[in-house]
Amino acid sequence: MGLAFDATGLQAYLGEIFPQVADDFAIDALSEQGITMRLKVAERHLRPGGTVSGPAMFSLADVTVYALVLSRLGPKALAVTTNCSLDFMRKPESGRDIIATGSLLKLGRSLAVGDVHMVSQGSDRLVARSTMTYSIPPER
Amino acid sequence: MGLAFDATGLQAYLGEIFPQVADDFAIDALSEQGITMRLKVAERHLRPGGTVSGPAMFSLADVTVYALVLSRLGPKALAVTTNCSLDFMRKPESGRDIIATGSLLKLGRSLAVGDVHMVSQGSDRLVARSTMTYSIPPER
Amino acid sequence: MGLAFDATGLQAYLGEIFPQVADDFAIDALSEQGITMRLKVAERHLRPGGTVSGPAMFSLADVTVYALVLSRLGPKALAVTTNCSLDFMRKPESGRDIIATGSLLKLGRSLAVGDVHMVSQGSDRLVARSTMTYSIPPER
Amino acid sequence: MGLAFDATGLQAYLGEIFPQVADDFAIDALSEQGITMRLKVAERHLRPGGTVSGPAMFSLADVTVYALVLSRLGPKALAVTTNCSLDFMRKPESGRDIIATGSLLKLGRSLAVGDVHMVSQGSDRLVARSTMTYSIPPER
Repeated sequence: MGLAFDATGLQAYLGEIFPQVADDFAIDALSEQGITMRLKVAERHLRPGGTVSGPAMFSLADVTVYALVLSRLGPKALAVTTNCSLDFMRKPESGRDIIATGSLLKLGRSLAVGDVHMVSQGSDRLVARSTMTYSIPPER
Repeated sequence: MGLAFDATGLQAYLGEIFPQVADDFAIDALSEQGITMRLKVAERHLRPGGTVSGPAMFSLADVTVYALVLSRLGPKALAVTTNCSLDFMRKPESGRDIIATGSLLKLGRSLAVGDVHMVSQGSDRLVARSTMTYSIPPER
Repeated sequence: MGLAFDATGLQAYLGEIFPQVADDFAIDALSEQGITMRLKVAERHLRPGGTVSGPAMFSLADVTVYALVLSRLGPKALAVTTNCSLDFMRKPESGRDIIATGSLLKLGRSLAVGDVHMVSQGSDRLVARSTMTYSIPPER
Repeated sequence: MGLAFDATGLQAYLGEIFPQVADDFAIDALSEQGITMRLKVAERHLRPGGTVSGPAMFSLADVTVYALVLSRLGPKALAVTTNCSLDFMRKPESGRDIIATGSLLKLGRSLAVGDVHMVSQGSDRLVARSTMTYSIPPER
């Protein structure tokens, strides 16, 4: 199955549909195998002590899988998150972006499931892992 | 097991330790049975179309269980989220706060598990449900 | 929404479609609010030390939500488990059946989500909790 | 961190501590990177239609992560499952064993988290995926 977007096109499209948050994220790479998404960590993502907040990590995992679904189904795709599991393994390193590597475990007619591994930039130690399920409503 | 805080005291304490986000939340009720936490929905919590964002719902579930743990263990408690499962059932109703009802399923020596049900204010239809696990590091 | 089965009818129907395992389970109660399902604990459900095995608890949660879906949609319903989250809180008490209380959090056109709380009979301390999502394929 | 067992030693040890179920499983490979565990599919693992049952898949994921923990911590290790998330992607192919590939995402002092991918033998299409968290009680 081919890709409906390249990285630049998908980044631009995310900017259109999520103007509030798209600047937080950058697509570092996109291929048929998966996506690399960067959370550009800023003050607003931090908790006391300098750690990246849980909601910011959730947001990164969610946008990563949503971008994967869009990359396959194109801009007309509707998809809503129905389930998330998220494990936090280690404190991220302070002052570093978070790099998410995402791949689709399933892309069915009504459900898509994506897997996301998150590390601090320059490290290979897992900070968090998430599986996100999206429901794809039937076309009308 | 008694409570280490009442609702007012816990609200104030959350304001001290999470000055960035504590204003988003209000503790409507706190007892030994559980907690009622309100997400005061504002523009920054919304996605296009007026729906409350996933990260805002995650944030509400997370702070609800964290507040439950603090209410039992007191302000010295250290606790870090290690696992989250989150199911999204329905679109929240627009223009309404989200009300989370949380209870502790377990409060062990090293793990606490809390369950959270979220509805739009004035409705009894579940918008989302979450289970959050917190690791409680040993006192030093 | 009414019920398509009463407890006796549903028990009989489970016996028809799952002859291998239906004898492990008994429906203690069924109403529009939910279901009470008993795991009749036997030697084959135990692990060394006398604790009920994880797979037996999974099985109980799975059949509880499946029975809930059938009770609403009737015997023609197709439904396959797509996601499970399961938290284990405490060791069950030895020599006791496990009692599961299940309710539907959502029954949509393509997804059903059920919540299950499990205790040792005669206790109110939670042994495990599970959320199960079933996909309901479109009728053909 | 080295391994406390090789594949043969670990297989023998599982047979000692889980005599009821160890024959269902074979360790195909074990290294510092991870483990390959086979569910030797038999009649008792099947549901009507010939599909491998959910509890059998749960059991495979659980024993895979437990074996990973033992392979690192040795036979004295105590570890109890505290959380499981399990996604079912596709029907397994009938008449084939299920092959689980497991790796540890975290091995901390009090928690271990393992990831498991399951396929039908000879296929690379994911049948199920699971994350299992084990609590490791402090040594006494």
